[in-house]
Amino acid sequence: MNSTVSTLRALLNPRSVAVYGASSDPGKFGGRVMRFLLQHGYRGRIVPVHPDAAEILGVPAVARLDGSGIPVDACLLALPSAHLAAAIEDCGRAGAHGAVVITADFAETGPEGAARQEELLAIARHHGLRLIGPNCLGFINPQLRLALTSSVALATEPMPCGSIGLACQSGSLMASLISHAQDTGAGLSIAASLGNQADIELCDLVEYFIEDEATRAICLYIEGLKDGRRFLELARRARAAGKPVLAVKAGRSEAGQKLAQSHTASLAGSYAVWAAACRDHAVILLDDPEALIYCADFLVRCGVPSCPTVAVISPSGGTVAVTGDRVAAAGLALADPGDGTKNALRALLPPGRLVNPLDVGGLPRASGLDSALTAYELLARDPAVGAILIAVATTPQLEDKVRQWGQAALALEKPTAILLTPGTLVDGARRALKEIGCPYTNRLDDALRVLRAATDYGAALRDSAPQAVAEGSLAAPACKHAARLQAGRLNEPETKALLRACGIRTTEDIVATTVEDALAQARRIGYPVALKGVSRELVHKSEAGAVRLDLADDGALCSAWQAIAAGLAQYRPGALLDGCVVQPMLRGGIELIVGCRWDAQFGAVILAGSGGVLVEILDDVQMAVAPVSVEGAKRMVMRLRIAPALAGARGRKPADIGALAETVARLGELAAALGPRLSELDINPLLVLEAGRGVIALDGRATLTD
Amino acid sequence: MNSTVSTLRALLNPRSVAVYGASSDPGKFGGRVMRFLLQHGYRGRIVPVHPDAAEILGVPAVARLDGSGIPVDACLLALPSAHLAAAIEDCGRAGAHGAVVITADFAETGPEGAARQEELLAIARHHGLRLIGPNCLGFINPQLRLALTSSVALATEPMPCGSIGLACQSGSLMASLISHAQDTGAGLSIAASLGNQADIELCDLVEYFIEDEATRAICLYIEGLKDGRRFLELARRARAAGKPVLAVKAGRSEAGQKLAQSHTASLAGSYAVWAAACRDHAVILLDDPEALIYCADFLVRCGVPSCPTVAVISPSGGTVAVTGDRVAAAGLALADPGDGTKNALRALLPPGRLVNPLDVGGLPRASGLDSALTAYELLARDPAVGAILIAVATTPQLEDKVRQWGQAALALEKPTAILLTPGTLVDGARRALKEIGCPYTNRLDDALRVLRAATDYGAALRDSAPQAVAEGSLAAPACKHAARLQAGRLNEPETKALLRACGIRTTEDIVATTVEDALAQARRIGYPVALKGVSRELVHKSEAGAVRLDLADDGALCSAWQAIAAGLAQYRPGALLDGCVVQPMLRGGIELIVGCRWDAQFGAVILAGSGGVLVEILDDVQMAVAPVSVEGAKRMVMRLRIAPALAGARGRKPADIGALAETVARLGELAAALGPRLSELDINPLLVLEAGRGVIALDGRATLTD
Repeated sequence: MNSTVSTLRALLNPRSVAVYGASSDPGKFGGRVMRFLLQHGYRGRIVPVHPDAAEILGVPAVARLDGSGIPVDACLLALPSAHLAAAIEDCGRAGAHGAVVITADFAETGPEGAARQEELLAIARHHGLRLIGPNCLGFINPQLRLALTSSVALATEPMPCGSIGLACQSGSLMASLISHAQDTGAGLSIAASLGNQADIELCDLVEYFIEDEATRAICLYIEGLKDGRRFLELARRARAAGKPVLAVKAGRSEAGQKLAQSHTASLAGSYAVWAAACRDHAVILLDDPEALIYCADFLVRCGVPSCPTVAVISPSGGTVAVTGDRVAAAGLALADPGDGTKNALRALLPPGRLVNPLDVGGLPRASGLDSALTAYELLARDPAVGAILIAVATTPQLEDKVRQWGQAALALEKPTAILLTPGTLVDGARRALKEIGCPYTNRLDDALRVLRAATDYGAALRDSAPQAVAEGSLAAPACKHAARLQAGRLNEPETKALLRACGIRTTEDIVATTVEDALAQARRIGYPVALKGVSRELVHKSEAGAVRLDLADDGALCSAWQAIAAGLAQYRPGALLDGCVVQPMLRGGIELIVGCRWDAQFGAVILAGSGGVLVEILDDVQMAVAPVSVEGAKRMVMRLRIAPALAGARGRKPADIGALAETVARLGELAAALGPRLSELDINPLLVLEAGRGVIALDGRATLTD
Repeated sequence: MNSTVSTLRALLNPRSVAVYGASSDPGKFGGRVMRFLLQHGYRGRIVPVHPDAAEILGVPAVARLDGSGIPVDACLLALPSAHLAAAIEDCGRAGAHGAVVITADFAETGPEGAARQEELLAIARHHGLRLIGPNCLGFINPQLRLALTSSVALATEPMPCGSIGLACQSGSLMASLISHAQDTGAGLSIAASLGNQADIELCDLVEYFIEDEATRAICLYIEGLKDGRRFLELARRARAAGKPVLAVKAGRSEAGQKLAQSHTASLAGSYAVWAAACRDHAVILLDDPEALIYCADFLVRCGVPSCPTVAVISPSGGTVAVTGDRVAAAGLALADPGDGTKNALRALLPPGRLVNPLDVGGLPRASGLDSALTAYELLARDPAVGAILIAVATTPQLEDKVRQWGQAALALEKPTAILLTPGTLVDGARRALKEIGCPYTNRLDDALRVLRAATDYGAALRDSAPQAVAEGSLAAPACKHAARLQAGRLNEPETKALLRACGIRTTEDIVATTVEDALAQARRIGYPVALKGVSRELVHKSEAGAVRLDLADDGALCSAWQAIAAGLAQYRPGALLDGCVVQPMLRGGIELIVGCRWDAQFGAVILAGSGGVLVEILDDVQMAVAPVSVEGAKRMVMRLRIAPALAGARGRKPADIGALAETVARLGELAAALGPRLSELDINPLLVLEAGRGVIALDGRATLTD
């Protein structure tokens, strides 16, 4: 166990806690903290710290911790900014393991706040004191009945105790999820809010949860990772430890990225990269905070489906039809039960009914047994059924039926999502499920999220574990080549030279600086040709009209040259046209985009997608953290929507997928080797020819930084 | 008012109701009906009909209605099948307006059940008695405190009274939605379940709701429409009457279509056609039954956004980030408030915070006012903001804040979706909103559905109303041509001949019956050429390898011919190769698919989509009920994902969109004129050339029926 984890163990499981800013006024942060500590019956010692009060809410107070002789594991600081430095000094001198800083107005407000945050951190580091926060709401440890938080969510009892570890960058989201867990019967081992992550960061909590025996699933609300590569390494460890990691991340939209920055001073990075990294590391990515609890609770209490198929059952014909449609729309496969199951079901059903989705409304009892329950048990015992969704609308004897279904689900250990769509009308059924320890959802959206998460997680576990790719020597010549280049944008010929140094085939272009020069080249390579403007000012050549294709003769070439010059002048007045490249028109392949980026969270990443003019229209891009193996690159391109065309759909010859994967892997190696110096590079289009004929980069651009 | 509507008015607002099968046992259908009638305090007269009981639950009973001298408006029949005919006879003789048949086991079970259903209907028709059902759960009319249903949902009180008209083909979904309305504070004018629609069908209810003054929004759960064209006509009337129509329809997936058939004997038709028809007629299409109530209630109580933009506000930084992301993912546009609003907001906010989405956490009071409320009011008064989403996690004084926000929303008449993510912890806030009559949701999914529905509906109302397209004479020659054709599949040359008769340009193909013939043709038109196999057995030519492109010379052509013959033999052994067509290779355009279908609900429909090899990969198809005007066809193709390429993205020349729209309109006219005889026709690919150069059908297939 590393030292951060052992410190966290002491901090999150404290024998005693000190509260700076303790008060008897529940309108104040320190007042609510004291109230919740007492209300929930914390099993350790409470030490209010107050400059002059002898006691707070009946608990003896001290003016300072240092010199009091009281050993304290965790300190909570709910103080105005001006008093924080002294308090941290005091905690440090007294030998506390860590301090939770609730106070806000630090790095999230800009550079000045960041400087103040650094000052506090320096004091803490001097004493070996670890910090949670600032700008957070503290944490709870239900096993110790410890609510070390000012959140009003703790006003209701009891704290939901269980095995879900929750770490949130947002305090109020943590609080909302605690309330949510309370309602649904889910239980938490620890719920912590981390705020600005000045010291203790999300990955530290993940590492703690991996080692914590009480934690069986890990839920995260993330605004920005401090170290994306560490997160992926921890995801590998969590997977090996059999603990699912579930995450919601802010910053999917531009607005979300800015909000993450202003909320907890987080750099959100690219969401597409994040999503790809999660998929490749069996991290369950969700779009909704409450779904974290729903999905983690389902995995903890119901387990992982053994195959990725779902059976749907409902006593309402309308509900089963809607649910069947939504299961399909959610990308879940309907299970095809075995013949034995089918025959047994058909014996229970009126003619014409489907076996899955299964309408069990109005079935007569068979051999004295409830046929709806028998039908469930038949599906649950079928190994071809991975998970079951029981969608309940209203029906007579609902409470009894739901209780029996829940008991059967737990007894047969078949992952079963029970959905209760009516409102308070069926609260009896909700209470029955809570009593027997069976999870449920109230909305179909959440039932589908739960099934999708559990099914995807099961599939990811059955896949081979992600391997770190060893760095090869392929990129060495390209690095040497890049070392000689100046920072800034590389034009098309410069980019292609870098690609060739990396072993990637490109068209051999020579820049024609005059139209006569271009005419001579075109006659040499033979019409038809393409003509493209070259200028540092041109980022999107097509938009500026600087790409002219299918030029059939001298006349067409001359007009094209003039049009390119005119287009550039209009696109960026005053820009210098360095010249034009003349290229042969290549036909018959499939155009992709292949590129790399430097990401704020994960560093070098690669991408591949549908290219050419379709690139924006198709929105068909796959990404991965670089480097990737050739095999990994192949999996990546075969996930593209255009993959069937690459594989030779509709009678076409298959494309050279091997050469494509090799190119993606080479570029990934280059990106990993050049690091932040290569901020981005795009080959667009990369023409993928027929199998055996390779690939060729037709155009490219890149940006280098210092 | 037509006679069905006036009958429905009498039936749904009865002064007296008779209950056949009345019982004092709540375990029986007729027992629950009696109990709910009494429990809710129905304002009219109750007449139990029972062969020998003198009274049921204290209400005097009669053995039969006919001859009793008691005038009855509505009868409910909860009887075994064997007694139904006599009961309907009795209702009819007694002069009742209509009968609600709860009993199941009719058309939904197959042809025998359908025949039994027809017999009952014949008896009813003989007496001029209208039927609701069979296989339904009855209806409620909360204004009359009338629960004429056996659903256990009516066990709780009070019935939610209001202005949403709800018609469901599924009884238990209706019941679940009544419970849902009870919980959220939404109110119903009528909720009716229609079951098999033997007589009274969904469109009759829609027509009633359009004319019913108490109804302000119309919610529908549909398994299959009896008459799609009538539904669209009613949608136009509802739009003109200012009553939004909201619908959930089963049958989006294949499983859902089968379930609709086995549940209420409904033919679901194509969901894509349905979705297109809804979009074109301002019908709000939802994927979730409970969302019907959420969205209708929002439109009724909060109104329609005046512009399609959303502002997001939350006292939780994490919640606002997640919500901002989801708003963007839901395709809603974030509002850009005016400068005055922005400046006023910035005066309230710490530096660095966005104005929208707006984090109002931890704001100090300004001039003695709550800044979070002031911020809301600033956004609500801004005409650039169409609607507002207030996303509430936990925060101190939550209940007061939420109440103030709700009051401000109602006072300022700004459509505002209030989302309460915590659980029972914030039930106080829920009660406060119900008290003041302000709707809310508990899940972000539903808040987004509400905003999306209201925003889309507002946009649809601002669009011009859909016009019926007059039939032209264009298709007459094609109809004449088609009259001479036999039923069955048309091969490529036959299909093209039909297209040319309709004024659509095609390649002029001659079938070569020998390879020598093909070689001669290829030399005449000039290499490269394409060679395609012709056979009635070939539906998907590409899959059978029967399309060979880019053949450069005689050798390539001969090999291609052999490959096509071999491919067909493998694809369908014994199939006859009629020959091959030789075509010039045409370049430089964009390949679309354009076609028409005969749909079970709407009749003739047309489609346009990305074509060629990308057709399955892109999943880019738009549909419309035929015929469409050229302008309508243009709007349709410009909604395709490929539209930017058609318009000339990335420096390409624009395609001939006018000629494309003309072709779509012509084909629509042909489809409408031929009716069910043309079960389908596809032009794939239709090559769309540069603007001014037209379009040309490169391949096509069709199926005619008798």
